[in-house]
Amino acid sequence: MSLPIGGDNMKLLVTYHYGTAVFEKMSKLGYDVTYKPEKSICDDDLAGIDILVCYDPFKQLSEKAYQNLSHIILSSTGINQLPQAVIDNSAIKITHNRFGYNKPIAEWIIMMLLVGFKQLPQLFEQHRQKQWRIDTDVLELSGKRIVFLGTGNIAAEAVKRLQPFDVEIIGVNRSGNQPDGFDEVYQMAQLQQVLPTADAVVVCLPQTAETKDLIDANHLQRIKDDAVFINISRGWSVDEKALCQVLEAGKFKFCALDVVKDEPLEAANPLWNYQQVLITPHNSWVSENRNQRRLNYILENLKRINSGSALLYQVNAKRGY
Amino acid sequence: MSLPIGGDNMKLLVTYHYGTAVFEKMSKLGYDVTYKPEKSICDDDLAGIDILVCYDPFKQLSEKAYQNLSHIILSSTGINQLPQAVIDNSAIKITHNRFGYNKPIAEWIIMMLLVGFKQLPQLFEQHRQKQWRIDTDVLELSGKRIVFLGTGNIAAEAVKRLQPFDVEIIGVNRSGNQPDGFDEVYQMAQLQQVLPTADAVVVCLPQTAETKDLIDANHLQRIKDDAVFINISRGWSVDEKALCQVLEAGKFKFCALDVVKDEPLEAANPLWNYQQVLITPHNSWVSENRNQRRLNYILENLKRINSGSALLYQVNAKRGY
Repeated sequence: MSLPIGGDNMKLLVTYHYGTAVFEKMSKLGYDVTYKPEKSICDDDLAGIDILVCYDPFKQLSEKAYQNLSHIILSSTGINQLPQAVIDNSAIKITHNRFGYNKPIAEWIIMMLLVGFKQLPQLFEQHRQKQWRIDTDVLELSGKRIVFLGTGNIAAEAVKRLQPFDVEIIGVNRSGNQPDGFDEVYQMAQLQQVLPTADAVVVCLPQTAETKDLIDANHLQRIKDDAVFINISRGWSVDEKALCQVLEAGKFKFCALDVVKDEPLEAANPLWNYQQVLITPHNSWVSENRNQRRLNYILENLKRINSGSALLYQVNAKRGY
Repeated sequence: MSLPIGGDNMKLLVTYHYGTAVFEKMSKLGYDVTYKPEKSICDDDLAGIDILVCYDPFKQLSEKAYQNLSHIILSSTGINQLPQAVIDNSAIKITHNRFGYNKPIAEWIIMMLLVGFKQLPQLFEQHRQKQWRIDTDVLELSGKRIVFLGTGNIAAEAVKRLQPFDVEIIGVNRSGNQPDGFDEVYQMAQLQQVLPTADAVVVCLPQTAETKDLIDANHLQRIKDDAVFINISRGWSVDEKALCQVLEAGKFKFCALDVVKDEPLEAANPLWNYQQVLITPHNSWVSENRNQRRLNYILENLKRINSGSALLYQVNAKRGY
């Protein structure tokens, strides 16, 4: 699809079909809009394009494809799909969908904390076997010490929802700065001291050089054996070999992984086999509101590019988020 | 176990072993304490007893057993185990464990709302089959209209925890009076009009003459087909034959039943078979804090009986809760 091209309109390539009404809206904002499905994007499609609205067409593109580009508007929160050539190109302004998914992911975190402390997986299995047998070891969430690794906007939304549950909310981040709602916040350097105090560990870390395999054998050992462990950010941050070793030894009351190192997780991966593990297929961000939220941010940034005002959610690609 | 009996001390029969330290505490409060396991209680055990601390020894007792009794301190929240002879006996003051379980049950409600809207049962099943397949129909809890049938202390605790989730919180009760935290409250007479507006229905009704089979075929029909239906109070309030009929027709996005009419639910019961149903074995009240909370209430009431002050949580047995 391609709308009529005016004189000096900026040229927009959109790789997801947001609907003709949306494309017309973009056009009315003064853009020449081309739609092409992301999977079929190649270098030629970017010729003359100023603004790329996409998730990840980068694997199909060579370095020279970006020559004319002034903006990339990512539909995703994560930016790890960006190739080095784009990150290094200071002529391209990049924005990401920073707040597009934090609400559903926050709900997911609360759900998994409850599912873990209430031992729901065992109760699911009992239902499957049509067994009525009360589980007297079910715990309350109230009174537990929840440690968030990463205190960004996903953790912030989760923390907001945790307030009435009477829990201790602990954060660990780079600076040790204490955002609203946290009872205590520590620096990453103190992680070893913080982990043994956690009843639940929630991994909300961005994928950066510093977070690669951050949760290694040593850190895993320091977490209580009967803690709840939740990863909703990136498999990148967890040493999966070390994780499998502690799971094999029976560690964790419950381990909810919405993300793993290699997605989709292959059926042969041992992670599927541990009784205390629940794998979900990178699903926590899904919501019926996702398209509208994504669209609001994209349209707002197209307006701002037009008017020359500061963009929403500009990425610091070198920092990694 | 029986501690030495003093002159005119009140005589206490306790049917659960709270531990010798606790029995000594009761003794120091000025009671003659006898412990006997509930299952083995018979009429003779109540001879001369003033206060019975129990859950349900009533099936083994005849009417004349209660002649001398002045107090029954129930360890349960529900009081439906009380025989008519006891309810009609105005000489016996009865108290129940009104706030002993509302926190864990409130957590359970939030968990089941999330599990329902996030379609976690399907994701559990996918894990079992080692399938990585994203579910793009997963919903947010935020924005949903949650209708509580019954606005007592369990609903109140759930409502408190729902506040930051950006939901509409609707109550239906006998009076239409609006407790804290509800956006709207209707009278039971308006139930037919309220049900079609619900994205989730949470049954928190006491077991009384008025609530028997309250959720019948007509009411079930009025609930949206893709609503989440949760019962954490009593199977008594739901016409199970009618429920099975609508479930058979595919009704409900998710139906979490922690209670059923006849517990334990027999393996042959059709309720086990519907894909959208999760049966849990009357488990929502369980918590590691249950013994301490129960004990606090029992000891407090023993103190109050001693000092002649108003009892905590005295039951209006004729009203039914």
